[in-house]
Order: sequence, then C-alpha cells, then structure tokens
Amino acid sequence: MSSFELHPIGLVHSPLRERSSAPKQGRDGSPLATLVFDPVFASGLSDIVAGVEIWVLTWLDRADRSVLRTHPRGDPRNPLTGVFCTRSPDRPNPIGIHRVRVVSVLDDVRLQVENLEALDMTPILDVKPVLKGESDA
Amino acid sequence: MSSFELHPIGLVHSPLRERSSAPKQGRDGSPLATLVFDPVFASGLSDIVAGVEIWVLTWLDRADRSVLRTHPRGDPRNPLTGVFCTRSPDRPNPIGIHRVRVVSVLDDVRLQVENLEALDMTPILDVKPVLKGESDA
Repeated sequence: MSSFELHPIGLVHSPLRERSSAPKQGRDGSPLATLVFDPVFASGLSDIVAGVEIWVLTWLDRADRSVLRTHPRGDPRNPLTGVFCTRSPDRPNPIGIHRVRVVSVLDDVRLQVENLEALDMTPILDVKPVLKGESDA
Repeated sequence: MSSFELHPIGLVHSPLRERSSAPKQGRDGSPLATLVFDPVFASGLSDIVAGVEIWVLTWLDRADRSVLRTHPRGDPRNPLTGVFCTRSPDRPNPIGIHRVRVVSVLDDVRLQVENLEALDMTPILDVKPVLKGESDA
C-alpha cells in the first residue's frame, strides 16, 4: 500500500508540557489551550464561532509507532490489549481525535478551546464540526 | 513545520465504488463494508468484538487537498463555508473519521461493519474505541 504525507495546519499551545502530567482524556481535567493555525489556512476557519464543539485531529509526535499491544491508560494492572482497542497515543499512525469546545475566537488563526489533553506544540492536522449523532448524551 | 508519513494499516472493502453514489455520512444509508487489515497488525486488533462501536480513521485518497472553502454536502445552494466547518472529504489533510458498529469479526484481520460511507479500497489509518462521552444521545 502507498504511503501518504501529512502537512500540519497548525500547532497546539498548551500549558501541558509532558506526557506524564497530561490527562488521559480531555475531560479528565485539561487546562485551556489555544489552537494556532498557519495563516494560509485562515479562509478555511472563517465560519467557526465560540460555543461550538469541534473535532481536532492531531499528530501525536511523541508516540511510539511500533506498539501493537499496551496496558490501557498506561496502568500495568490493566491487561495487555490490542492498541486498536485503546486510545493510547502509541500506535502505528498516532493520530489523536479530540472533541473540544471553542471558548473564543481570538483572531482569524487562533481558537481558544477547552477539554484538550494534547501537549504543547502538538501538530494539528484537521478540524471538523461535531455532528449531531456524535454529541453527548 | 515538519511533515509526517502515514502507512495504511488496511483497506476498506465496500460495494460503494464512486463518490457520486456514496452517502454523505454513514447514517445516510451505507451498505455493509469489510475492513481488511495487513496481517502484521493482527495482534493490535485482537480485542475487538462484535457489537462494539469503533472509530475508523481513513485516508480519503480521492480528495482535493487544495480546497479551503466549499458548499456543505456538495450542494451549491448551501453558502460557501470554510472546510474546517464542514465534513467535506476535500481538505488539506483528508482524514476521514467514521463511527461504525462491528457487525462481526470474520477472522483476525477482517471486521464486517455497518454505517461506513467510505469508498471501496479507501486506506485505513487507525481504529479506536468509541468512548462513553462520544456515544449517541
């Protein structure tokens, strides 16, 4: 199968600096973060408004891509599990999917968001609206 | 910013062959599809069972990566919108996220799934469990 090349569209700015201190999931208690986009993508962002929920796709650049089995949530008491049955960042294509809420639109290339557990300087690959069937109970 | 290389882990097998005939979203009426994985990833899949919901991440290889504004759902009556506010496959990094249900585990590298709108032979990048906060209302 062919390979494909990703070009990041922006970077996460977050007080979270190390994997050991980051929450496992956004709702486990994440500080406010800012998504900072490359200005060439500004026109693609222009309809995002405060209050909406979005999917942020990231490249988990500190992941180990060779891992196929892992202990969920990094806890050795959890039995070894196939990575595709976990949300571990360590996986062959370490793409993170994060459902976050836009707190404010700071300018045309910066969005402040809540519930993002990604580390500072994590590359952003894509942003998508959350669809109705994907929203919370 | 650096670029990153994706190596597909499998391919979608689906009766959907052309973009014009594919539903816009999985729940718009998709036929059963089969996810066929490269055998080197079998151990990463071993804990997936029939009935569970999973996220399937795909590389939408027939997308136009230069698009930044588009008419949602391909309907020219919808006003031009930033692609990051739409689920259009045409976007700078055309990664599809699909929430599907595993209908059956055919063998250690083949999963039959429902609600997948991806086209036949679409590369699969990742599979993740759906978390509780992401499930349906």
